[in-house]
Amino acid sequence: MNIREATADDFEKIWPIFYEIASAGETYGYRRDVTKEEARHLWMEYPRKTFVFEENGKILGTYYIKTNNEGPGSHVCNCGYMVSSAARGRGLATSMCQHSQQIALELNYKAMQFNFVAASNEGAVRLWNKLGFETVGTLPKAFHHPSLGYVDAYVMYKWLTD
Amino acid sequence: MNIREATADDFEKIWPIFYEIASAGETYGYRRDVTKEEARHLWMEYPRKTFVFEENGKILGTYYIKTNNEGPGSHVCNCGYMVSSAARGRGLATSMCQHSQQIALELNYKAMQFNFVAASNEGAVRLWNKLGFETVGTLPKAFHHPSLGYVDAYVMYKWLTD
Repeated sequence: MNIREATADDFEKIWPIFYEIASAGETYGYRRDVTKEEARHLWMEYPRKTFVFEENGKILGTYYIKTNNEGPGSHVCNCGYMVSSAARGRGLATSMCQHSQQIALELNYKAMQFNFVAASNEGAVRLWNKLGFETVGTLPKAFHHPSLGYVDAYVMYKWLTD
Repeated sequence: MNIREATADDFEKIWPIFYEIASAGETYGYRRDVTKEEARHLWMEYPRKTFVFEENGKILGTYYIKTNNEGPGSHVCNCGYMVSSAARGRGLATSMCQHSQQIALELNYKAMQFNFVAASNEGAVRLWNKLGFETVGTLPKAFHHPSLGYVDAYVMYKWLTD
């Protein structure tokens, strides 16, 4: 497994992936003109842990894990995954999602929630379904897609323990 | 209308309400042992605006409004409302929610979303329904209630414009 916890220095290699995805505006609830420092905070500092998928010294993907709500909600985590466009279609998102579920259990989370999956991101929805996530909510017109206009967003959820 | 935007000084009067509600652990996704400084950040600094419901110089209720997701989600806001136990049952939550919908429109939001409404908080669910919010998602066992154990949490949503 090429997945390891990120170091602060890794952000230099994470940023191009982050910027490519955020600036496209098709999948994440981040500003399209997000700055590098904001991205560092969002991806490296605010989450509980951040991981990278590495191959021959290159970072091809990354994910974070954090607590979705504190207190009465602190048994449910949230993750976000990004794969470099050059490495798509090779199963990195699957590997990272499976890895994150294992990490979630090690951190004593009982469930994982995705808060804001654009309905237009059909590949992601299909993948999360395949990995055991259920669509538990539909947010009408909550995602403003740059070419499709207002589309629904899904809340997806998986209970991880027995 | 006794609702006005909060000043930094108001936090001294907001904190007892916040602490009473957060420490009970029955309604909000905050740590039950949240500190005053954390609460100040969560309620006064992190949101876009914070309001108070005032009567004869006493603060009886408070709410915040913030952007729920940035970028493609920035047309949807999120609010949280707290009413002092001494002032419950007098329609303050209704007044504050109606006020917040007006403020949301002034701030150019198109929809309002509540991310984490404990299913056990039946009064709140009924009230939000009455005020036009729909339950658009059910998060299974996402809320750990101090006496009821794991209960579902609802995602509630209202489109505010035509």
